[in-house]
Amino acid sequence: MANIAFVGLGIMGTPMAANLIKGGHTLYTYTLGNTPADLVSAGATSCASAAEAASQGDVVIVMVPDTPDVEKALFGKDGVASGVRKGAIVVDMSSISPVATKDFAKRINELGCEYLDAPVSGGEVGAKAASLTIMVGGKQEAFDTVKPLFDLMGKNVTLVGGNGDGQITKVANQIIVALNIAAVGEALLLASKAGADAAKVRQALMGGFANSRVLEVHGERMINRTFEPGFRIALHQKDLNLALSTARQLGVSLPSTAVSQELFNSCAAHEGSGWDHSAMVRALEKAANFEIGQ
Amino acid sequence: MANIAFVGLGIMGTPMAANLIKGGHTLYTYTLGNTPADLVSAGATSCASAAEAASQGDVVIVMVPDTPDVEKALFGKDGVASGVRKGAIVVDMSSISPVATKDFAKRINELGCEYLDAPVSGGEVGAKAASLTIMVGGKQEAFDTVKPLFDLMGKNVTLVGGNGDGQITKVANQIIVALNIAAVGEALLLASKAGADAAKVRQALMGGFANSRVLEVHGERMINRTFEPGFRIALHQKDLNLALSTARQLGVSLPSTAVSQELFNSCAAHEGSGWDHSAMVRALEKAANFEIGQ
Repeated sequence: MANIAFVGLGIMGTPMAANLIKGGHTLYTYTLGNTPADLVSAGATSCASAAEAASQGDVVIVMVPDTPDVEKALFGKDGVASGVRKGAIVVDMSSISPVATKDFAKRINELGCEYLDAPVSGGEVGAKAASLTIMVGGKQEAFDTVKPLFDLMGKNVTLVGGNGDGQITKVANQIIVALNIAAVGEALLLASKAGADAAKVRQALMGGFANSRVLEVHGERMINRTFEPGFRIALHQKDLNLALSTARQLGVSLPSTAVSQELFNSCAAHEGSGWDHSAMVRALEKAANFEIGQ
Repeated sequence: MANIAFVGLGIMGTPMAANLIKGGHTLYTYTLGNTPADLVSAGATSCASAAEAASQGDVVIVMVPDTPDVEKALFGKDGVASGVRKGAIVVDMSSISPVATKDFAKRINELGCEYLDAPVSGGEVGAKAASLTIMVGGKQEAFDTVKPLFDLMGKNVTLVGGNGDGQITKVANQIIVALNIAAVGEALLLASKAGADAAKVRQALMGGFANSRVLEVHGERMINRTFEPGFRIALHQKDLNLALSTARQLGVSLPSTAVSQELFNSCAAHEGSGWDHSAMVRALEKAANFEIGQ
């Protein structure tokens, strides 16, 4: 059993930490605000700083919202870097910039520690059910060491390549999901406006080449008008911002990703930041002055 | 066993007609040029006009390239309308305008005939293997009558709704497939440019929410650089033109479909009209001055 430092106990971090405790591991936690009472009563030791938590860990997990948050948690005042033991493995499970990740990994390596980027997909539901998809970048040996911990939090755990490759895989995932939502939204809206029954159209398409997880799950949401999250538009905007800024840094042009981001922006303009991302179709519907099934 | 008129023996029509003959039906055929010798030796009767073929059929199937071709086959000089028997069922299996289809159906109904729009997906391979997806619009009774014939040509046969609903379902299918290709193309290109192994990224994504038939089939094509058709870009351009012109007629805005069409247009500018539609990624690669796996 390992001593694990866990930094960042939000909607995702809390159930992930709980699953590690359930697996028999010893947790030293740090988060903005207080460590949730449930975790403390389950045995987590609440620490005064990321540095203090890190000083206790063979593995140091970070799970915070965005690139600047990871930078602060790792390299800020009383951050992980100022406490971590030589030989420990730092695992960033946040979804952040692939380019910044390579820099963070280098700086952690210089402390005599390994680094894994290991962003997840599957959301709060997947975090609670320990069914997250985990996309990992880093060295094989470090991956093998941490793998039993990943298996306590997720189901589909893949070492994709070196540092940054976990993050770019997550970005790729979010590009595809957003564009598949756009695909299903444009298709079902056009069919509905033409007078067809969108539910029957979706059913007819599910057997063929147009099928996708998004057609199955979000196609149904668009038809049934169930836009409670799920996965919030504000979070998908953050992820597409990562995609578009990474593309700009690397000299890649992502025209369809840009369109999807603009549709999310339009939803946000209609107070839809908190809607499920399948509600991207509402921006298309606003433009057409027509709703699916109307 | 039925007497069937079959108008249009191209790449798709020829194997579809052959499967109907194999099913024991009697075929009267008309096509531009000559009825293929294989069909004649299998028993098809070659006719001098669409009208002459139609005059022999309980069911009249039309399988030609585009909306004006269907209009000519049905209502042109010596077309189906001037020969078809009262009580026959006219089945248009071409992929054409959903709006024009409603008009064609009305004009055929006025002759005392039923009309089904029944476009297919699955391409030449599906036509030969009798595994086409067939999306049907029209009346239940006419559908039930023709269903045994559809079953000789396809596997996934759905009555979606009234006339035009088969065509709009096919348009919806082509929108989704094009946009899913854009999704996989943008995601894998960005990941590859960032230094990740596109094959491993695809593998990691296939277990999760980003999965689609297009990720499975065309994702692999993009990685292996196998862009022989398959389904030609020129045909997908035709289908997205249907999508965009229908959207304009109905007052719907399809921004991502428009982007995909522009990417196909860019491929055509690089002499790629005959490439498989998965080669849409080449337009993205040109823009980035980088190829997946480079």
